[in-house]
Formats: sequence, structure tokens, C-alpha cells
Amino acid sequence: MRIYDIIRKKRDKEELTKEEIEFFVERYSKGEIPDYQAASLLMAIYLNKMNKQETAYLTEAMMYSGEIIDLSAINGVKVDKHSTGGVGDKTTIALAPLVAACGVPIAKMSGRGLGHTGGTLDKLESIPGFSIEMTAEKFIESVNNIKIAVCGQTASIAVADKKMYALRDVTATVDNISLIAASIMCKKLASGADAIVLDVKTGDGAFMKTLDQSFELAKEMVEIGTAMDRETIGIISDMDEPLGCAVGNALEVIEAIEALKGNGPIDFMNLCETLGAYMLVSSKIATDYEDGVRRINEVLTSGAALEKFKEFVVNQGGDPRVVDDYSLFKKANHIVEIKSDKTGFIDKIEAESIGVSAMVLGAGRETKEDELDLSAGIILKKKVGDFVKEGDTLAIMHFNREEKFEDAKRRLKNAYIITEEKAEPKKLIYGVVTKDGITKF
Amino acid sequence: MRIYDIIRKKRDKEELTKEEIEFFVERYSKGEIPDYQAASLLMAIYLNKMNKQETAYLTEAMMYSGEIIDLSAINGVKVDKHSTGGVGDKTTIALAPLVAACGVPIAKMSGRGLGHTGGTLDKLESIPGFSIEMTAEKFIESVNNIKIAVCGQTASIAVADKKMYALRDVTATVDNISLIAASIMCKKLASGADAIVLDVKTGDGAFMKTLDQSFELAKEMVEIGTAMDRETIGIISDMDEPLGCAVGNALEVIEAIEALKGNGPIDFMNLCETLGAYMLVSSKIATDYEDGVRRINEVLTSGAALEKFKEFVVNQGGDPRVVDDYSLFKKANHIVEIKSDKTGFIDKIEAESIGVSAMVLGAGRETKEDELDLSAGIILKKKVGDFVKEGDTLAIMHFNREEKFEDAKRRLKNAYIITEEKAEPKKLIYGVVTKDGITKF
Repeated sequence: MRIYDIIRKKRDKEELTKEEIEFFVERYSKGEIPDYQAASLLMAIYLNKMNKQETAYLTEAMMYSGEIIDLSAINGVKVDKHSTGGVGDKTTIALAPLVAACGVPIAKMSGRGLGHTGGTLDKLESIPGFSIEMTAEKFIESVNNIKIAVCGQTASIAVADKKMYALRDVTATVDNISLIAASIMCKKLASGADAIVLDVKTGDGAFMKTLDQSFELAKEMVEIGTAMDRETIGIISDMDEPLGCAVGNALEVIEAIEALKGNGPIDFMNLCETLGAYMLVSSKIATDYEDGVRRINEVLTSGAALEKFKEFVVNQGGDPRVVDDYSLFKKANHIVEIKSDKTGFIDKIEAESIGVSAMVLGAGRETKEDELDLSAGIILKKKVGDFVKEGDTLAIMHFNREEKFEDAKRRLKNAYIITEEKAEPKKLIYGVVTKDGITKF
Repeated sequence: MRIYDIIRKKRDKEELTKEEIEFFVERYSKGEIPDYQAASLLMAIYLNKMNKQETAYLTEAMMYSGEIIDLSAINGVKVDKHSTGGVGDKTTIALAPLVAACGVPIAKMSGRGLGHTGGTLDKLESIPGFSIEMTAEKFIESVNNIKIAVCGQTASIAVADKKMYALRDVTATVDNISLIAASIMCKKLASGADAIVLDVKTGDGAFMKTLDQSFELAKEMVEIGTAMDRETIGIISDMDEPLGCAVGNALEVIEAIEALKGNGPIDFMNLCETLGAYMLVSSKIATDYEDGVRRINEVLTSGAALEKFKEFVVNQGGDPRVVDDYSLFKKANHIVEIKSDKTGFIDKIEAESIGVSAMVLGAGRETKEDELDLSAGIILKKKVGDFVKEGDTLAIMHFNREEKFEDAKRRLKNAYIITEEKAEPKKLIYGVVTKDGITKF
């Protein structure tokens, strides 16, 4: 078998076999196929596409290119949640305690943020004392004891994916549905969960800009998961404006705590409820979606979810008093209100621009080496559909890096599109994809 | 400007600007753009194509990536001939003296053979004493004095093309019309000729397997040449069977000498006449194609062309007595007749397989480092349309490398397709492309 012939086949729109895909993934991850041949094949895949069968083979080959995590020592049906990434997406921080309080074992391996989207690990580390470092034994023991633990993703998982993603990133071959689906699913499958709930973001601030693409990606991933005997559900949720109001590490944790107290922004509360209900369904704890919603609301109103969050924080060395005293979070030196120049309705808040604005302030990393300022970020005071008068506060910026303020402010103001007429309200959840098909809302 | 954005544009089927193409070619040839990004862009170009304007920009950028040869010290209209490569293609060796004898200055820079096609330099070096090494002064002086000189292509011409070709070769991005046209024309344009006659081969043994592709390639190159103010003519000629009967270095030179004596195989004689006539037209020596044909036949029957060949050989240190005494060429130790197993008509002689068979015997190089056996090769005794009886000789193999004989013989025999009915005779010349349009014969 020669990589040249594999490139030529895909270039000529032919279907690749299981053996050919395995050959490519194995040899490439070992460095036996050079980057330039891999880049050529990836562009051919990008343009000529892969069918479902090829995508499944690619996922499996990448899954087996690294360590396979064994979570069998954890009792119950382990459910993993994955978001395709968005701005202000602090969902895991509220959702994990919500479902854990309902009895779902949450053994979550998370990543750090890059670019305009943040990472769960960075957010959690804004809690004083909180650590994501733990041994495999402690991780499993924690989930068995208190149903919840979050640690960093090991570098030994899906090594081919890591190498291939870095190459795709510099060769304009990222946003292809097969390649995204395989990249996400190989890591989820290698991480050992029994069931997977996928939050596929759609819109301006997401990978997938259109609804059709988002449904297609969800369908592709659900089919892969199903074929690999994992109960897999995909939710399509809006990322045309940032999720909730807070963007930035400590600010987002505070918003997640507020949500656990029942006071979170409505879109964020709804998303947690929806994803939580499906997680309960896929773990077999809830009999159906409605039962799931009921159970989530129960642990929310009873305070059990907030208690679970405190337990989780304590277990990982964090200070649980932050729940009642937000002043324990590091605070930015500068807190500046940004006023509107116009009067009208908020028609759009470009999520990606808000993400970049927060990144510029220090809340995110432009390159892997950048150091974060966990206190920096943005609180949106106006969301899409709100009315605003000239001089009203659009948002509040928290920062220490004064020299970055003007650039970040310009980006934030440009992200707000204000019009005279009120736009049609947008949906938060566009639909759900299960092995039985697609339901659009 | 970023190479990432250039890749993304071509991936999304957008047209690249002159500046973007120049940026890519310049930075890539300097090593400032890595191979993997170039490979990704080349696959995007291969699949999404380039339009005429982009191809012209690419050609120009590659032309200026190396030395530009100045032939202005040579008197008259310098005409260059280029063949896209075929098996048994010894055309330059007979054609150059033919047109030089008519008064066209021939300042030819040639290449060596690789794979199943041979190179003019290797062929000429089978003449005892012949050297392709000479100074620029001697080269120009020779053309001014005797109208003809052939030397090796300098490595400093079109350096971007050399690097890009090597990458295309291993990433399955060779046979794209824009990339082939730019690669050929950048070198021709940098080589300083005033007019260019292109012999675009079509069929099994050629780059372009179909007639449509061949016309398209010719049209593309004629348009590039015309845009760069070079009179450019493209001839589409057959390469479904090898050209003439001889394949292998010394064997082909002998066949070329026979042609200059008026005794060459009919297809080879016709091709020389056609290409020669067009070269005379583009150099303004002939008033039209018919006048060109008349002049070519004049120097052929008068013996002037054969005399010109001797003069050329002497000027480059070769022994001119080879013209009358073929025993002065190195002879192979083994000369073996290959018999037919079948009775019938020759329907096809797969040119590429014959080329590979001769290469295996030592007439060609599989890799750049391989050493040639200039005496090795094949003489075809039967051509397409001939009748053959079981036991008749199909071809004669000349070789020294005994251990390669069986493999070469198997390939040769497989290349001959013998059928019961006589096939329609095929054309040798399918048409001509000039700046005024396409004429199909």
C-alpha cells in the first residue's frame, strides 16, 4: 500500500477502504507519512468529502491511535457531554452538578480554551485552590463517591487526531463535517463514556454557520456513536449571540453558580435544562425527556445541585465559600461600562467578535503559550431583542491590561448591531438528533 | 498576506490575484512557505482548477523565480520546440538539423530522461565524444556560426518549478492542465526563444490520455505564450504507440540519422515534416505551412540536413563518422528477437509499457541516480496495423543486463495487443492550435 495511491483515489472521488484509512492514520501518527502528503490528502478529503462509512473508519482508526480510557470501575451509566464550542459557554460548570445530583456519574475530561472560545479547565481554575490534577485512581474514586470529577484530557488520547488537527489548522481544512465529526468522536469514544450528549452549536460564533450544516454534523456524529454502541444524542443550539451574559473565566463561573441558584440568564438556564434532561434519558435515570426536565428542576429548586457543586469544588481542593461570596474570586482592576451610541433594538451580537474582544482583554489565548487573566472578561447588559437608548450601558468590561482596552472596546461595540425594528425572537434549541432520526423544533 | 488565506480562497473556488500567486511562488521557492501548505494549495488548485488568467500569473511568477536566459546576441528568430514527452521520441535529433539547414537558429536547452520517457541529452551522448557541456559564449557563437547547438538545461532556470514539480510528483497533483502548462511554459519562456512550437502528445504513453485534454493543454500553453509575446503553435500528435521503431538511446540516434537520409519510419518522418514546417512558419522563413513542408523536403533530399547534423556533431566534439558507420556506436552484448505467440493484426502497442520495458533493460532511469546503458533498448519490428503470424518477430531487444531480460520481455509482450480484425488506421497528427484558434485534422 502506498500513500500516493490513497491520495490519488480520494482526489479522483473514489471511496477509501478501511485498510487504506488505517494505513494513513497509523503511519501518519508514527511520522512515517510526511506532513505534505497528509496535507494533500486532507485537502482532497475536504473537497471531495468522505461518506459515512469512511468517516466511521477514520474515527475508529484515530480512536485506536492512542490510549483508550477504561472507566468500567465506575458504577452506573457514564454520560459525557461535548460542546462544539462557543462564546460564553460555561454549560459544563452548571450542568455537571445538576445531572450528578440526579445520580448520573460524571467523569469529565476537559480541555483548555484557544482562540475566541474558552475552556472548562481554565474557568474552573479561577476558583481559588481548585485543581484539575489528579491520579486515575482518585478520579475514579471521586466519581464513585460523589458522582463528579473533572480533570485534564491526557495527551495520550487519540494522538493521530492531535497531529492531524494541528495540520488542518494551518492548511484550511478544519471545517469539513467528516473531519470534525471524526475528530470529536474519536476522543469521546476513547474517553470511556457509555453515552454521549453532543451540544452542536450553530451560527456566527460556531464552527457550523448554517443550520443545515449543524444538523448534518450532529447526524454524522450520532451515527458514528451509535455504530460504536454508544447511546448518542445531538442537540442543535444557538451560538449567534454569546450564551448567557458572562464571557471570561471567573465571570462565567459566577454566572454558572447563579444558574445553580436559579438566577441564571434565561437562554443558559434553558440549555442546561435541555441538555440535562437528555443526559438523564441516555443514562436511563429518566424515563423520557419530560421526566428528565422534571428531575433537573427538582435538584435545582431543592438546592441539591448547588450542594453537589460545593462538594465537587471541595473534592478538587477549591474554596466552596465562593458560592456565597463572589469577592473571593480575583477581581480585575478596571471595570468599565460601555455605552451605546445609538437608540434602537439589539438585532445581533456577533458572538465571535465578543469572544475575540474578551480574548484581547486576557480572558482567552491567541496562541497556546499565552497567559490568561482569569479575572478579565465581559458582562453583556443587553442581549438580542432588548431595547437600548443612546447612553445606556451595553456591556461591562473587566480587565487589567489597560493597553488592550481600546482595541477590545472597538471590537465589542462593532459586535452590537442595533436596528430600528425589533427582530423576530430566535430559537435557543433548533432540534435534536437521535439514532431514530431528526426532530426540528 | 497569509498563505492560509490563499489556500482558503482556492479551496472555496475563488480566483487568486496576481499578488497572491506571486506571494506563493516567491515564498515557496525561498523555503518560507512549508511543503505541507504548498501541498494543500496544489491539491486545491488541482481539484478547483485555475482559470487562464491565474495560470498566466503562475507561469510568469515561476518564470521569474530563476535565471532568464538572454539569447539576444543570436541573429534571427530563435524557435524552440518542446515535446510533452513520449516513448521513442527522438524528434529533436532529426528536427533540429532539418530546420537549422533551412536557416532557423536552434539554441536548444534539453533535459535528461526519467521514467518511461527518454531525454535528448542522454541520446546525444551515445555518439562517441559528443558533449553537452559548453560555455554560454560558445553556445551563442555556435548558433550564430552553424545555426545549431544543444546544451543541458541550467539548474538556475525556474527554480520554483523544480521544487513544485518534485512536490506534485509525490502528492498526486501532476496531471492538472494549468499546472502542466505553467510548468512547461515557465521554462520555455525563461529560455529566451522568440517563438515556441509545442508537440503535445496524446494517448496511452502521454501525460494527456484523451484528445480533449490534449487540445485543452495546447490551447492553454498557446494562450500563455501569446500573452507573453511569443509566437506559439501547438501540434497534437499521437503517443498511443511509440514514435518510430527505436526505443533506447543509441538505437534512437541511428533511427534519427536514417530519417535524415530519408529512410526513417513513416510516422516519425511525418512528425518531423509537420513540426519542421511550423517552426519555419513561426520563424518567418516560410510564408505558410505548405512552403514550410516544401523547404523541409528540399534540405532532406539535397542532403543539406544530414550535412548540418554532421556539422553539429563535430562542433560538440562528437565523431561524425557515426553517420556512415553505425558500428561506431556502443553495441549491446545480447540482441534477442521476441516472437509472437499469436496470429493476427497489431491492434495496439501500449507505449508506456514499451517505455518501461526499455527502462528495465537500462535505456532509462527509474530514479535520478540510476546509471544508463546507452546501448540498450528495443527495435519494434511490427507497428499498429501490421499483420503478424505466430512465430514472427515482434521486436528485437538489445541489452547487457541479463538479469533484467525476462521482466523486460514480459512487459514488451504484454504491450502488444493482437486481434483478429484490422483496426482503423489512427492519425499521427490530430490538429494544430495557434493564437487564431484550433484546427482539427
